[in-house]
Amino acid sequence: MRLHVPIHLRWGDLDAFNHVNNVALLKLLEEARVRAFWRPAAGEDAPPTAVLDPSLGAGVLTLIARQEVEYYAPIPYQRRPLDVQLWFGKLGGSSIEVCYDVLSPADAGGAQILYARASTTVVKADGATGRPLRISPLERAAWEPYLEDTAEFTHRR
Amino acid sequence: MRLHVPIHLRWGDLDAFNHVNNVALLKLLEEARVRAFWRPAAGEDAPPTAVLDPSLGAGVLTLIARQEVEYYAPIPYQRRPLDVQLWFGKLGGSSIEVCYDVLSPADAGGAQILYARASTTVVKADGATGRPLRISPLERAAWEPYLEDTAEFTHRR
Amino acid sequence: MRLHVPIHLRWGDLDAFNHVNNVALLKLLEEARVRAFWRPAAGEDAPPTAVLDPSLGAGVLTLIARQEVEYYAPIPYQRRPLDVQLWFGKLGGSSIEVCYDVLSPADAGGAQILYARASTTVVKADGATGRPLRISPLERAAWEPYLEDTAEFTHRR
Amino acid sequence: MRLHVPIHLRWGDLDAFNHVNNVALLKLLEEARVRAFWRPAAGEDAPPTAVLDPSLGAGVLTLIARQEVEYYAPIPYQRRPLDVQLWFGKLGGSSIEVCYDVLSPADAGGAQILYARASTTVVKADGATGRPLRISPLERAAWEPYLEDTAEFTHRR
Repeated sequence: MRLHVPIHLRWGDLDAFNHVNNVALLKLLEEARVRAFWRPAAGEDAPPTAVLDPSLGAGVLTLIARQEVEYYAPIPYQRRPLDVQLWFGKLGGSSIEVCYDVLSPADAGGAQILYARASTTVVKADGATGRPLRISPLERAAWEPYLEDTAEFTHRR
Repeated sequence: MRLHVPIHLRWGDLDAFNHVNNVALLKLLEEARVRAFWRPAAGEDAPPTAVLDPSLGAGVLTLIARQEVEYYAPIPYQRRPLDVQLWFGKLGGSSIEVCYDVLSPADAGGAQILYARASTTVVKADGATGRPLRISPLERAAWEPYLEDTAEFTHRR
Repeated sequence: MRLHVPIHLRWGDLDAFNHVNNVALLKLLEEARVRAFWRPAAGEDAPPTAVLDPSLGAGVLTLIARQEVEYYAPIPYQRRPLDVQLWFGKLGGSSIEVCYDVLSPADAGGAQILYARASTTVVKADGATGRPLRISPLERAAWEPYLEDTAEFTHRR
Repeated sequence: MRLHVPIHLRWGDLDAFNHVNNVALLKLLEEARVRAFWRPAAGEDAPPTAVLDPSLGAGVLTLIARQEVEYYAPIPYQRRPLDVQLWFGKLGGSSIEVCYDVLSPADAGGAQILYARASTTVVKADGATGRPLRISPLERAAWEPYLEDTAEFTHRR
């Protein structure tokens, strides 16, 4: 199962070539990841996107160990949010592999364009010591429905 | 009359002080301005926010001549879009003064917090020559409903 | 007296108009300010730019209360660092007004181009409580040589 | 042989965790790449860093096809430029694989820290049509001295 996170572009994501910059794309992935894992503040209603509850809590640091991304089509500025689809390629002892397909807006009509595919290895760590923390059974149970095959990269050497 | 443009924060807008960075705030204003003036592509439905039609068209450059901003309260990361209120402080011969109040989300309940106030002087210019272009009667007619008193800055020396 | 801080552009500062973005300019000012006030780590030699010693230390927060900027000429990408000239327009009880002239590289030959002028009001505050802190006599003595007339803005209404 | 490109950090590269953000790191790589390939404007002296001449010229687009990056140690803000070491892992028909090791400043004394390793696949393309362009014999001859083994990633699944 995939989590669909709508992410709005900003005109400022464009670079001098007038397309969403390749680095800016990773900012979109970061935001999709934050929105997926972020625990809403008390009193804040559930947001329109699903939330991976239980979210990573206070005192927990998430370290980025590696990222891989392939770009398939230039992304123009558009007002409708991109459809960032997110799943897990692996649930390890203390690390998770988050995979993403970045597609054109879901409600634009016609076939969606696959703009990019990516993966991020996130390590759950202690906020004070920086040491890896084990993923809890509660977290594993909440995340397992989103476990799929890892993202396949076509241009990898 | 003010135009209300919902603008989503990104976690990446935070700086090392864990609040929306003072420069990142101007990226939010830029995006609000683009969304207000952007002519949707053919086939794209009207977006949820009002559009200042007739928008500035192709071959027209918008130069930023000056900006002024005052910060009143730190902005934490939050999932709901900020309520960026936008109006014109002045419609000149070839320049417009865009004013903004940046408030906490409109639907969060309770009184809204005024985070910041700003103004941007935008000059309409010829895309090829860079020379100022006169604002057309059509544009003036479309924009006049949004003409209000210019933003009042309280900390200006 | 002005402090000259060389600041390198990044190609990523350009926007879709192929010039340094108006918001990115404020990132350059932020970096010039940080370099001017940053206390080098122990063991780090004095950097090539002068340092406003005594710098603002640990436990001290610097809040940005307002900014004003005027843009006079588009800035192209270039490898040589811009010449950001920095001085104080005012030394208040707990706030300082930092003024900037952003010029083309100092060593490029010919007359320098004034790209932009700006000012930032910085409030010295307690890192824990957020309350304004008085500027110390030591700080005042170190900063007074850089006190000049405040930046004059020509497009202010 | 590796090209050493000094890249200055900006305080704004830090995120709310007070380290250089994982996405900001790719902005540093982008700048190192631009500095390595950028043809200085006429009249601009050779910059302190070597230049991969003949540079990619006008009318040529460089498309980013994929990126891979591994993060080994958090990067604190520091005034001295990072030592971004750049080489080619492959020179293909119309694409090149740029590899990078990002190290702590070269002149800081003591052993350098390897902060991150990355690779970017760049496709040389026609600026008008977007079609891949063959790398010329002149380019190949200029770039071959920088051909080494491709970057080895230790966390790749």
